[in-house]
Amino acid sequence: MTRRPNLAVVGATGAVGEVLLGLLSLRQDVWGEIRLVASPRSAGRKPVVRGEPVEVVPLTEAAFDGIDVAVFAVPDVVSAQWAPVAAARGVVVVDDSAAFRTAEDVPLVVPEVNAAALRIRPRGIVASPASTTLAMIAAVGALHAEYGLVELVVASYQAASGEGRLGEAALREQTALVGGVEIGRQTGDLRAVIADHGPFAAPLALNAVPWTGTLADGGWSSEELGIRDESRKILSLPALKVSATCVRIPVVRTHALAVHAVFEREVTQEHAQEILGDAPGVVVYDNPEAGEFPTPNDVVGTDPVWVGRVRRALDEPAALDLFLCGDNLRKGAALNLLQIAELVAGEPRPA
Amino acid sequence: MTRRPNLAVVGATGAVGEVLLGLLSLRQDVWGEIRLVASPRSAGRKPVVRGEPVEVVPLTEAAFDGIDVAVFAVPDVVSAQWAPVAAARGVVVVDDSAAFRTAEDVPLVVPEVNAAALRIRPRGIVASPASTTLAMIAAVGALHAEYGLVELVVASYQAASGEGRLGEAALREQTALVGGVEIGRQTGDLRAVIADHGPFAAPLALNAVPWTGTLADGGWSSEELGIRDESRKILSLPALKVSATCVRIPVVRTHALAVHAVFEREVTQEHAQEILGDAPGVVVYDNPEAGEFPTPNDVVGTDPVWVGRVRRALDEPAALDLFLCGDNLRKGAALNLLQIAELVAGEPRPA
Ligand SMILES: NC(=O)c1ccc[n+]([C@@H]2O[C@H](COP(=O)([O-])OP(=O)(O)OC[C@H]3O[C@@H](n4cnc5c(N)ncnc54)[C@H](OP(=O)(O)O)[C@@H]3O)[C@@H](O)[C@H]2O)c1
Ligand SMILES: NC(=O)c1ccc[n+]([C@@H]2O[C@H](COP(=O)([O-])OP(=O)(O)OC[C@H]3O[C@@H](n4cnc5c(N)ncnc54)[C@H](OP(=O)(O)O)[C@@H]3O)[C@@H](O)[C@H]2O)c1
Repeated sequence: MTRRPNLAVVGATGAVGEVLLGLLSLRQDVWGEIRLVASPRSAGRKPVVRGEPVEVVPLTEAAFDGIDVAVFAVPDVVSAQWAPVAAARGVVVVDDSAAFRTAEDVPLVVPEVNAAALRIRPRGIVASPASTTLAMIAAVGALHAEYGLVELVVASYQAASGEGRLGEAALREQTALVGGVEIGRQTGDLRAVIADHGPFAAPLALNAVPWTGTLADGGWSSEELGIRDESRKILSLPALKVSATCVRIPVVRTHALAVHAVFEREVTQEHAQEILGDAPGVVVYDNPEAGEFPTPNDVVGTDPVWVGRVRRALDEPAALDLFLCGDNLRKGAALNLLQIAELVAGEPRPA
Repeated sequence: MTRRPNLAVVGATGAVGEVLLGLLSLRQDVWGEIRLVASPRSAGRKPVVRGEPVEVVPLTEAAFDGIDVAVFAVPDVVSAQWAPVAAARGVVVVDDSAAFRTAEDVPLVVPEVNAAALRIRPRGIVASPASTTLAMIAAVGALHAEYGLVELVVASYQAASGEGRLGEAALREQTALVGGVEIGRQTGDLRAVIADHGPFAAPLALNAVPWTGTLADGGWSSEELGIRDESRKILSLPALKVSATCVRIPVVRTHALAVHAVFEREVTQEHAQEILGDAPGVVVYDNPEAGEFPTPNDVVGTDPVWVGRVRRALDEPAALDLFLCGDNLRKGAALNLLQIAELVAGEPRPA
């Protein structure tokens, strides 16, 4: 490439955007201009990127002039409308929303697992998976390569910041409200103290809410179906059996998952730990005797997915039970977007 | 029975004990004397039972004089030592600890599921299951009766009061500490603010800790194995396949479980909801469109197990996915103990 490619960050002021700007300052710098884009509400703000304040510009067609790669971290509807606009102007779009993840002509990429899928992108759009999927797929993909994956049963422990800045702020407010109160003495205590649930379907502080996403057929949520569809697509396993139950818990940042994975071939605990230890983007932290297992709090702000509680199922020699944690804003969003964008930046291009 | 039987509550001052005393004041009164027993630390305290203060006496052999039934809600080691002492004096012991749950000559009883097991108790001891098992077993048992259960995959969302008064107090203190603090910006934030984890293996406020119980073989925890062993025993299914991952979350009271249940026969969502709706001790609260699914906060202080998010697995017509909540101190402990004790009290006895 003769010049450094120019990057637009669309949604630079959101929860994912903020972490993305932080990563841009930390990672090896491959970019020419970095342009920050958001809604007109934020235009004129000047977040710091690579040590310098950069003015946020509103999302318009002109925002893509001279841009080579754009990462989108905006709501689904905004991506659905604007990613094609950017792509039509020759920009490679890397999108974090759900708008394109299951589209047949859009690759869904996790560089550690299926980097090659990036090459075929007829619409000029590449999608990044949901942060729940990203909290497990590098680990599950490595085990699949060895044992042949047949089925996943997943239960999630999802952080409030999965609902962006609003979700994070709502949990902080709710936690401050309940901090001094004797919650948990009788039914509905929290509803008496927390009038505003924020983006959650019920009070979240000191509670668990078994609902994320929107309603789909059969009582499933869009996020539960997403884990199924995305795992199948990333692993090229269209018949993979997947059942997921998605639950929001009062954690600010980092999703956790309990995963029961069934394989074609027999597993052992030690061998599974070895495979996971060798897998790119995965850290094994698994010694309960020494109190070592990942908790969301210990994973915040780190790049990899952390795996602990690796056990061979007692009644099924070809199954493993695992507990995984991944920072939903980092590998679950900003980092995966940037990894993809950097791969695009490194591609040979017409001069 | 010619006279009303006398009841001893051993562990009357604990988290389970407190709820038990409350229930004794609420339920139909079948008891003669109610004697309160705890450690010498609490002797002399006078909690109110049935509207009257009753003095706590220390745990000694004499504490069982004239007693017919004793419910034990004390640590495992205390039960292991004292339940046989009480039984040797002719007292029927109903024990809430893990000391006897898997003993072959001790029945493990959930009245809605296997009341008949109560009859054969060679040691004069009856065990009550763990609160995790109790959060699902009435619902799972009803489904088993209809469909034939083959396998359970369970992920728990367990409340702090599962660790008794100390656990509850620790979560309250931790929550007050983090209420005003910007936790979740970087790795280990909570460890900087919360020095004392209480009975948990890591800070619990705004976190999730994938560990409850003690370490067993193969990386499993005693509580995970307990769910397996207890489900098999209560349902008389010695070959039932069970995988559980137990996780503590920052909720004061009420355990929740995500359950993937595989059956011999095909299921439908509607029929499963009907069966659960007819099951004793189970309430179906399942209409996500209207925001209806159980959360721990809505279940505190209620008797039944609440079931929501009932879905037929998409890739397995004989499997269901469910989300269940049960008050760990009520059905998970005090209520189940009292239900068993009341059944014993109602048995025909030698005059
Ligand atoms: N949070 C996560 O864990 C996570 C993980 C994976 C994927 N994602 C996906 O990433 C996207 C962003 O999530 P987030 O959590 O960062 O949300 P967020 O905190 O609510 O931020 C939303 C961002 O989108 C911008 N935006 C909203 N409406 C816009 C419009 N009409 N035109 C231009 N910009 C607009 C906002 O700009 P203003 O500041 O100007 O309003 C802000 O920068 C979503 O699609 C989400 O599903 C999120
Ligand atoms: N919490 C739950 O959700 C739950 C659910 C199911 C089963 N269980 C089981 O129920 C039992 C009690 O749990 P908990 O949560 O109520 O615990 P807790 O709040 O710590 O209470 C412990 C009780 O045991 C008494 N005790 C402790 N050591 C004693 C001794 N040496 N002699 C006599 N009494 C003694 C305490 O009396 P002092 O006040 O005098 O110390 C207190 O009344 C445990 O075995 C637990 O595993 C608990």
